[in-house]
Amino acid sequence: MANEIQIKGGPESIRLHPYEHHTKYHETDQQGIIHHSNYIKWMEDARMNLMEQIGLGYKQMEALEIMSPVLSLSIEYRSVVKFDDTVVVDIHLVSYDGHKMEIAYRIYDKQTGEDRAVAKSRHCFVNKSGIPISLKRIYPELDTKFFEFQ
Amino acid sequence: MANEIQIKGGPESIRLHPYEHHTKYHETDQQGIIHHSNYIKWMEDARMNLMEQIGLGYKQMEALEIMSPVLSLSIEYRSVVKFDDTVVVDIHLVSYDGHKMEIAYRIYDKQTGEDRAVAKSRHCFVNKSGIPISLKRIYPELDTKFFEFQ
Amino acid sequence: MANEIQIKGGPESIRLHPYEHHTKYHETDQQGIIHHSNYIKWMEDARMNLMEQIGLGYKQMEALEIMSPVLSLSIEYRSVVKFDDTVVVDIHLVSYDGHKMEIAYRIYDKQTGEDRAVAKSRHCFVNKSGIPISLKRIYPELDTKFFEFQ
Amino acid sequence: MANEIQIKGGPESIRLHPYEHHTKYHETDQQGIIHHSNYIKWMEDARMNLMEQIGLGYKQMEALEIMSPVLSLSIEYRSVVKFDDTVVVDIHLVSYDGHKMEIAYRIYDKQTGEDRAVAKSRHCFVNKSGIPISLKRIYPELDTKFFEFQ
Repeated sequence: MANEIQIKGGPESIRLHPYEHHTKYHETDQQGIIHHSNYIKWMEDARMNLMEQIGLGYKQMEALEIMSPVLSLSIEYRSVVKFDDTVVVDIHLVSYDGHKMEIAYRIYDKQTGEDRAVAKSRHCFVNKSGIPISLKRIYPELDTKFFEFQ
Repeated sequence: MANEIQIKGGPESIRLHPYEHHTKYHETDQQGIIHHSNYIKWMEDARMNLMEQIGLGYKQMEALEIMSPVLSLSIEYRSVVKFDDTVVVDIHLVSYDGHKMEIAYRIYDKQTGEDRAVAKSRHCFVNKSGIPISLKRIYPELDTKFFEFQ
Repeated sequence: MANEIQIKGGPESIRLHPYEHHTKYHETDQQGIIHHSNYIKWMEDARMNLMEQIGLGYKQMEALEIMSPVLSLSIEYRSVVKFDDTVVVDIHLVSYDGHKMEIAYRIYDKQTGEDRAVAKSRHCFVNKSGIPISLKRIYPELDTKFFEFQ
Repeated sequence: MANEIQIKGGPESIRLHPYEHHTKYHETDQQGIIHHSNYIKWMEDARMNLMEQIGLGYKQMEALEIMSPVLSLSIEYRSVVKFDDTVVVDIHLVSYDGHKMEIAYRIYDKQTGEDRAVAKSRHCFVNKSGIPISLKRIYPELDTKFFEFQ
């Protein structure tokens, strides 16, 4: 399905659900559209939703004392989003090497399928002290999940 | 002066500066006015600015491991605020008994002096574990500052 | 059901669905809880959701050139909300006289049912020029919907 | 001065003031730092402040019925910003051809001068109907201001 991400793999492969957001009145600006800063929040929401689905939700990461700060992000706005629209945020893992990951996003209108924005973000993994860590070395089982997903 | 709060007391009495905010484009909504939820943030900004001025800034409170959560708040919206307006938030301590405090706010347009909103908020003091504490008993010197201000 | 609002009336009476919100990471603050200003946004989200359900959604109101600004609001915070919690916002119409309405809210944890906050807001109805209008006189059919709901 | 942008030109050249922002408590997240989505808002604040300084403030643009939507943006986060820090947003015009402009930003700590982020954004100019317009053709006097600034 266009709206679902198929994780490659054997029979146990997981079908991920894309993240949906029904836009809110307080997200509008006086141009009568959704303010562009909100898309950055939806990217985070979709990312956390994805991590949850692959078993690496925020609470799991917190228990393992890992965090994944945003190193950089870029976004291209393609068409405006209005109040009361529902947008879908499709997300996939572009690269992962145990230390860093890059994620790509496509935000489109649920009803028309029209693209609203495409975006990317890069993340590393750090421990509670902010020291970069290798998921590959410390938590190989998580590493495997990423490869499955990739 | 209308715009400054005179702390009662001896010659060492402090003149507090009211908090000013220049409204931002991302605070507008599609009605073409500043969204009403932002006023709640300005109340916090003004409160922290006030606490800073009386020597009880957030960093001081953190060092003492005290926090002052919001118990309740109420606000009456009197006239709309537009983008690029500057609002002044006048603030004063309504009551303080060592355990709780109540703060009153008047938000008005800097240029015209017209009222935009009046508001109140109630706060208690808790330690890092969330246990209510008496400032009066534990930190009498802070207590004194409050009385001066009141 | 505790979670649903039964509109009084005849056999055509409508069962309203309460509004649910899954809290977001960007709603947290450095105390490790959801920042109190977000509750004000959820109240609006729930109110718009309610209006939609009774056939007076934002798009309908816009077509009729009616707006319902917030005159005042008050909220009592009862217990903290954490990231990843789902809160339910129960809402009901306290009063409506054709010119103004008052709405009450109960925000509680979906899983435990524990109260997080109770709140109220008051609204009037204005036309595009900001002039207060009587729904009773101009749009009696909408007026009827309110009475059904009340 | 490191903190001021010198507009090239004759004796009438303007010295632009960089935009400063004192971070707010409601901008923090539960990691104890300023949430990364706020930087996107500061970029807008700094951009509007710059436009104001070169005589093309939002009110002027609105009177001319011109808007400059964000086409894309990218940001690299270099170090964390904490509550109560003051950041400076230095901004300069990378390119302008009458139809589009690209702006670059450097966000740094006011006290230490340490870089917090670098960013870029691209914008076009549209009329009230959203139709792209050429500032060069329609408002040559504005065009001149941009060249002076560039």
